[in-house]
Amino acid sequence: MSAITFDILHRSRMTAARTGRVTTLHGSFETPAFMPVGTQGTVKGLLPALVRRTGSEILLGNTYHLMLRPGSELIGTLGGLHRFMGWPGPILTDSGGYQAFSMADINAVDDEGVTFRSIVDGSAVWLTPKRAMAVQHQLGADIIMALDDCPPAVDPKLFSETRKRLSGQAKRAQQRGYDHSERLDEANERTVRWLEQCKAAHNRTESQALFGIIQGGADLDRRTWSAQRICAIDLPGYAIGGVAVGEGPEDIARVVQHTAPLMPEEKPRYLMGVGYERDLVTAVQAGVDMFDCVLPTRNGRNANAFTPTGQIRLRNTAFADDPRPIDESCDCPACRPSEHGWGGAAASRAYLRHLFQSREMLGPILVSLHNIRHFQRLMLDIRCAIHDDTWSALADRWPVIRGVRRESGPDGEGAGVRLAPT
Amino acid sequence: MSAITFDILHRSRMTAARTGRVTTLHGSFETPAFMPVGTQGTVKGLLPALVRRTGSEILLGNTYHLMLRPGSELIGTLGGLHRFMGWPGPILTDSGGYQAFSMADINAVDDEGVTFRSIVDGSAVWLTPKRAMAVQHQLGADIIMALDDCPPAVDPKLFSETRKRLSGQAKRAQQRGYDHSERLDEANERTVRWLEQCKAAHNRTESQALFGIIQGGADLDRRTWSAQRICAIDLPGYAIGGVAVGEGPEDIARVVQHTAPLMPEEKPRYLMGVGYERDLVTAVQAGVDMFDCVLPTRNGRNANAFTPTGQIRLRNTAFADDPRPIDESCDCPACRPSEHGWGGAAASRAYLRHLFQSREMLGPILVSLHNIRHFQRLMLDIRCAIHDDTWSALADRWPVIRGVRRESGPDGEGAGVRLAPT
Repeated sequence: MSAITFDILHRSRMTAARTGRVTTLHGSFETPAFMPVGTQGTVKGLLPALVRRTGSEILLGNTYHLMLRPGSELIGTLGGLHRFMGWPGPILTDSGGYQAFSMADINAVDDEGVTFRSIVDGSAVWLTPKRAMAVQHQLGADIIMALDDCPPAVDPKLFSETRKRLSGQAKRAQQRGYDHSERLDEANERTVRWLEQCKAAHNRTESQALFGIIQGGADLDRRTWSAQRICAIDLPGYAIGGVAVGEGPEDIARVVQHTAPLMPEEKPRYLMGVGYERDLVTAVQAGVDMFDCVLPTRNGRNANAFTPTGQIRLRNTAFADDPRPIDESCDCPACRPSEHGWGGAAASRAYLRHLFQSREMLGPILVSLHNIRHFQRLMLDIRCAIHDDTWSALADRWPVIRGVRRESGPDGEGAGVRLAPT
Repeated sequence: MSAITFDILHRSRMTAARTGRVTTLHGSFETPAFMPVGTQGTVKGLLPALVRRTGSEILLGNTYHLMLRPGSELIGTLGGLHRFMGWPGPILTDSGGYQAFSMADINAVDDEGVTFRSIVDGSAVWLTPKRAMAVQHQLGADIIMALDDCPPAVDPKLFSETRKRLSGQAKRAQQRGYDHSERLDEANERTVRWLEQCKAAHNRTESQALFGIIQGGADLDRRTWSAQRICAIDLPGYAIGGVAVGEGPEDIARVVQHTAPLMPEEKPRYLMGVGYERDLVTAVQAGVDMFDCVLPTRNGRNANAFTPTGQIRLRNTAFADDPRPIDESCDCPACRPSEHGWGGAAASRAYLRHLFQSREMLGPILVSLHNIRHFQRLMLDIRCAIHDDTWSALADRWPVIRGVRRESGPDGEGAGVRLAPT
């Protein structure tokens, strides 16, 4: 018996989208689902009960961070991640591979695994498929991810030296004689071998569902190859990895629209680390069921609030005396506390700006809450659009889907952050 | 008609303590009452609905901070402090005087008022009795405080040069030929004159209740003089100021036990800025009805959690694998989420330590919530003790009342923080 069941509830006639429900031992969640990210055992700034209030039904936990601090063994001893972080519902953990490749100072990646320096204490950490499983067994999430080899999506030689997000791996690649095609093939093949090793090491199939990850970069033939090989390994679900790692929305759409149809119809499809509203709708229409992204919380901490017409930067002086909530149409605890049985007035943009100017925690807290609710409201509307095939009505309600430019940096200082009309 | 009514519900037979209820235009609160402090328009890290969950019925807002940022005029334009910070219940604001004297770089204090440099932008700010009223009218709190002249409680010449908390005022006093007795008399007389000016300027007596403040330092004769003069001015309530500014618990008790009986029996008595559990019980027994203190939130942010047997420092390695909540007897959202209809497990000491080690906001949030609830549970038990005169049972339940040593510094690194037995 599998640790999860996936029931498809409704299929869109016009697109490949579907609504469904995934049931785990810790409860179920509706799909298409958006998972907020709880990197270090907490969705930053939010009590679990408040996360639940955003309509979130499943969280993502980061194995990389938790294995380094406080350690997965400790979390296991204390009863697992659900208990540790006080979240009784479904949890998905990634394998730690993505962060090991993108954040860490990598010493070596070979067929055995990846060695990196801990960001906590600098010690050497060796992550192998077997260890990725052991760590995720200790964490005890309902859905766990296979260790994959994550190559750069785009040939790093195409980037300038000064590109901020260029990973250490890519930088070193530039210095050596790097062949991007070779690297993609190597990663593709290694990811299949590692998945086999993960599956062999995964002996808790009745309580934890292992998902495999499709790689292949921006190259559609390599995506095909990876999808065929990964999905040939029988598992309760599959993911598309290596997307939204710096490429534009058109590239994301191209890869997802190509890859999703290659994945088994009757199992949940998970697009990792994506993304903006438009990316989500595009992926849903291609048949994707699950998403995670740090955007709502990361941008929320930086005073960038999502609205149906685009993001607004709450530090802007234009909001200094603005009595309106972030979004009049929103029912989150910041925009409409009465919806939650709370007596106080809505948080005005003026108040939120004051909180950020004063470096008060409540600013990040309120805007993170709002932003997560923004994405959950979008998912609710997406599920309605799937049911009724009312896609243009969806885009009318969420103009941002039709094309807001995106920010260029994590602090929202890019040109792409559009201010809502005031 | 006064902006508040005060009904005494029950009187202790053994002590001067009483339970009561203060009713304002924004609802009522039970006394003896503990007010959490919302310095910059927010109880740090806590949504108003979560503050409410601690059992808090009235908050204190700091006029000093709010007048500097975002400005009381803006808050007034936006509908007042209740609306601005989303707290629909009673609010008390101080006059700004205490912070102007203790925090600011004072240029001048004279009979007109006090001039200080803004901690936000360095500009000169002039605070007079009339301005203190105008600012508090804009903020719109239910209870507002008169501007008082706050001298050092203890002769600054008795302090060593290196004493950390010595105010700028005291330092300069040391350099000039300072006469502490003279300063106390000057402050006492000025405080009476300023109160008369505040009362004359206060034209909103039907919506905002003005309290006068008794000064006099640690000198009981001067306290008598001040109490007689201040309480001769007819007002809906009175406060004891200039206490808990560095002196020990015995001095606090001595001044409060002397001063409280000199205040009108039928009006609320407010002891400003106090304090630890033992100080509260002592003051209640002397007939005090209202308290405010930053201890629960300030210590909470620094990982110091209050328990009935003393504070515990959650950063201590002893808690690294401790599965217990902060306090098994506590019903706060951190210690017993089920009490709040929340599904998750209690926050273990191990989890809280992890959050502080990882610099996650949720650490300060959870411990602030717990600490405020700790004080509100103490107030609940104090009200029961008043009703039944069961004071020794109260001390049995709260051993900390019988005498825990206190911390020596704001970060809880002093020897006085006692670790609970593990």
